Amino acid sequence: MRAELFLIPGPVSEERLADKTLVAIDVLRASTTICQALQAGARAVIPVEQPGEAAEMRAKIGVEDTILGGERKGLKIENFDLGNSPLEYTEAIVKDKFVVLTTTNGTRIYSKAASSNLKITGGLVNISRVTQKVKEAAKDLIIICAGEEGDFSIEDTLCGGMLLHKLIIENNIEMELNDAASLALLLYRANSRSLKQTIARGEHGRLLADLGFGRDVELATETDSIPVLPILKDRRIILEEI
Amino acid sequence: MRAELFLIPGPVSEERLADKTLVAIDVLRASTTICQALQAGARAVIPVEQPGEAAEMRAKIGVEDTILGGERKGLKIENFDLGNSPLEYTEAIVKDKFVVLTTTNGTRIYSKAASSNLKITGGLVNISRVTQKVKEAAKDLIIICAGEEGDFSIEDTLCGGMLLHKLIIENNIEMELNDAASLALLLYRANSRSLKQTIARGEHGRLLADLGFGRDVELATETDSIPVLPILKDRRIILEEI
Repeated sequence: MRAELFLIPGPVSEERLADKTLVAIDVLRASTTICQALQAGARAVIPVEQPGEAAEMRAKIGVEDTILGGERKGLKIENFDLGNSPLEYTEAIVKDKFVVLTTTNGTRIYSKAASSNLKITGGLVNISRVTQKVKEAAKDLIIICAGEEGDFSIEDTLCGGMLLHKLIIENNIEMELNDAASLALLLYRANSRSLKQTIARGEHGRLLADLGFGRDVELATETDSIPVLPILKDRRIILEEI
Repeated sequence: MRAELFLIPGPVSEERLADKTLVAIDVLRASTTICQALQAGARAVIPVEQPGEAAEMRAKIGVEDTILGGERKGLKIENFDLGNSPLEYTEAIVKDKFVVLTTTNGTRIYSKAASSNLKITGGLVNISRVTQKVKEAAKDLIIICAGEEGDFSIEDTLCGGMLLHKLIIENNIEMELNDAASLALLLYRANSRSLKQTIARGEHGRLLADLGFGRDVELATETDSIPVLPILKDRRIILEEI
């Protein structure tokens, strides 16, 4: 299996995604929020790039059936129902609703994934489910890390490295890696015994703690704690039917 | 000393550069070519972003005194005198000339460096000189890697990591690192005994070999082989006066 990892979404062309499995990773916090919202019973999460699009989408679907969620600079967007803290996405609020989500880094990845064969939302909270699905799909793999404002982020790179490590070591899959995938694997292996601390001490982890979202960082770094498999289909992220 | 490394030039603001030492790294090949041209006696290397600007600069300085150099997609630009292979920049061709240089990734860094205190061209060929100068300047450090078409490049990251390693280990400087700087240091330490091979096997190293520039990769990865200190002053890169 060939695996290409991208530290930020920028350089990936649509051509490169064709007939591959795409895993979109934004550990802090879009991936985690998407997993949480779907586990709490949301019918779908609809990723959009801009707050304006989110409002249009709500108008289209119907106000009653929609929850608007998302952040800019880490904080809830004006007139939105929820921010980007996974803890807000409880069953009481999101069950049977469509969650329209727009975040600074994470939700943008989905807009460029038209041609890939399978698009998975990957985080640490569902890492084993993602690994299993990538293996079953048996296609070449593209891992896109959301990064942070056009810069690499250590938590997404670690998560990508963990996925590669699990494919290689736990599943004995022979992988051909691009340079960034090798780097992610190295980073994961150097920090595998201190994932939570490394991420909490990282730039984004500290920023979120400063904003009062320390518990989100805790939750997002609890591996396999939300073992769901979110899949993008027709521009909606839904749980895979089993 | 605080050190921030950027895997690609994108996210660095001018504010962040103020009163700091900037090291611009493009191992394959702009940094190496700049070191080589200046060692071969060029009066200055003038980095410009676009081929059109290079032609304008030549008209301004005078055709006799100017060499136009640079590449797009690795190859010499039409109507230019030289490409971006350091081997082309011999004394016979560049001595006492102004070299106007435009490359896909490397020369762009210099256009954003207006506010930093000191701007150094860093490569593996002059890594010890760069380390010494960063130490003497005793300002906070910004390392900008050119990367490759908006993606990280392993050779620039390794070079940045080597600079940090030399500052920390050989010069006993206590450094506070951003996440990308920690990553670069980890990458360097994991590959310090196989730098040349790691870079030659990397994506960009292989691409250049395929284009017939394997000797450039050899030359660019020979540490301290061109021990000069190119400094950007008034938009020209010149050798530091000793």
